Amino acid sequence: MTAGVCRAVAIGGGTGLPRVLRCLVSAGMEPTAIVTMADDGGSSGELRRTLGMLPPGDVRNCLAALAPEGSDLAAVFQYRFERGEGLAGHALGNLIIAALAEIEGGFAEAVDEAARLLGITGAVVPSTLADVRLEAVDAHGQRIEGQARAAVSEGPLARVELVPAAPEANPRALDAIASADFVVIGPGSLFTSVIPNLLVAGVRDALAVTTATVIYVCNVANQRGETAGMDAADHVQALVDHGMDGVIDVALVHEPGAGPGPSGEAEMAPGFSPVAFGAPQRERIAALGPRVVGAPMVDPADPLHHDPAALGRALQEVWGCPSPRR
Amino acid sequence: MTAGVCRAVAIGGGTGLPRVLRCLVSAGMEPTAIVTMADDGGSSGELRRTLGMLPPGDVRNCLAALAPEGSDLAAVFQYRFERGEGLAGHALGNLIIAALAEIEGGFAEAVDEAARLLGITGAVVPSTLADVRLEAVDAHGQRIEGQARAAVSEGPLARVELVPAAPEANPRALDAIASADFVVIGPGSLFTSVIPNLLVAGVRDALAVTTATVIYVCNVANQRGETAGMDAADHVQALVDHGMDGVIDVALVHEPGAGPGPSGEAEMAPGFSPVAFGAPQRERIAALGPRVVGAPMVDPADPLHHDPAALGRALQEVWGCPSPRR
Repeated sequence: MTAGVCRAVAIGGGTGLPRVLRCLVSAGMEPTAIVTMADDGGSSGELRRTLGMLPPGDVRNCLAALAPEGSDLAAVFQYRFERGEGLAGHALGNLIIAALAEIEGGFAEAVDEAARLLGITGAVVPSTLADVRLEAVDAHGQRIEGQARAAVSEGPLARVELVPAAPEANPRALDAIASADFVVIGPGSLFTSVIPNLLVAGVRDALAVTTATVIYVCNVANQRGETAGMDAADHVQALVDHGMDGVIDVALVHEPGAGPGPSGEAEMAPGFSPVAFGAPQRERIAALGPRVVGAPMVDPADPLHHDPAALGRALQEVWGCPSPRR
Repeated sequence: MTAGVCRAVAIGGGTGLPRVLRCLVSAGMEPTAIVTMADDGGSSGELRRTLGMLPPGDVRNCLAALAPEGSDLAAVFQYRFERGEGLAGHALGNLIIAALAEIEGGFAEAVDEAARLLGITGAVVPSTLADVRLEAVDAHGQRIEGQARAAVSEGPLARVELVPAAPEANPRALDAIASADFVVIGPGSLFTSVIPNLLVAGVRDALAVTTATVIYVCNVANQRGETAGMDAADHVQALVDHGMDGVIDVALVHEPGAGPGPSGEAEMAPGFSPVAFGAPQRERIAALGPRVVGAPMVDPADPLHHDPAALGRALQEVWGCPSPRR
């Protein structure tokens, strides 16, 4: 670990990864985001089908999160058309990344150029540049094809896999993991945003051998379907089941404690419930290997998500290195 | 006229206006482009219909022309989708301007914000912010509705008008004309890019009273249809017929002279022919009022257009003020 600046990597996708990136930037880091390429819903899915490109949406959200605060160009990237034949539903940044992929001759080059145009802090790196799809199997053994469909499954998911099963890892993702001081996995949709990155064998292997401290940030709330009824230990178990056995050093879990937080399901939106965590879960997680750190981290105003400042403080305690000067 | 820097305004649209803007920037000016809003073809027309916005295409081309040389963001603006349902044919910059119009709450605000993002030299100003359409009458008295259809008419056009007939002028266009040292009208499609600006009564009146030297740059080639068979004097006559009587100080016309240039129609693309200019035309233009300046300006490699350097030199001789330091 370098004296002043921690080299931080965050792995995930969806809306969870941009949130953790903002925490890391607030703490003075220049994080590298490693982003899932399994998204096939919404504007990204439409562009995959119609332009044959990799899904830009998760990348776009990470770029916007790492753009300078108040960036006008980031607002342009995040604008979503509400009207217009063929335009409605598309995020403009997705179209810009699509154009850059043609101009620059590749998706990775497009992401780099978008990062440059936006003047981001850190880097955004797809976990693979292969055209991968997600397949899920739910708790009843039923197969679900596609990330978007898996994300809205009725019952909890049991496992996911990539098709094709062995996509080549993006070398830049592997370099970032190898030279990181800390790797943050999650929070975010466990099976449809987080684990798809870990199914890329090269990424999994790089995590297994890195000297970085690997921290799993457990979700504070369960989504309807995908992780319904799963407690904190079930989340860690799912990671272990998907190749993370012996890889995670620390599991950082929301623990109501003295801090603010929802007291129970009543405060959650319908279809969502807190991820249960207590002594039994702590014991089960520890038995799986990771050191368990509990901290009050839920956002009282938005109990489905972490409070960014609280998550930032908790992460900083775990990683233990001083906040670099901005 | 200020001692060092000429305040230059260029009026037009299509592909002619961006060319003259680059000449002016090359000469060290910070020009204000006054741009027609009558375009209703292609990507712009599609966005007018589907989003109910003003046409962004001509504005976009001017913004790109005034962006720093080699600007990556300008390349993004000028990218045109070749594929994709609902995307094919759209220039990305048009979509960005559409998004900015929603974000910023208006078309003029969107153009300003795009100008800021691109870091342009000078300014781009629509001649009106009213939702105007062009109607043309050809030499046979036949009525043609819409700019795009008029631009591909079979016979030469006789006159054009705006619907509604009396749109309010954009105050910023009037201010620019009032405080200009020089106003350059054209080159560009006479009836479908240049004159639509002059049909805005406020713009016409501002040109009539400005102390600026008003220079009309006559096209070097006729387009099939729109101006078929029209000589240089016919071009000036058309301007006079559309409210420019007594307004144009100088008519700058390509005159083969000693310089390079096409010797005749043989070197033109099919459907295009040089705009005739000789002693009779010179006399007829002078009789209409303007001082006539002939100079070799055609681009030998592209005889449909002015050579930018030659046009720049000719303009500089006409405006007579020293090139400011860059």
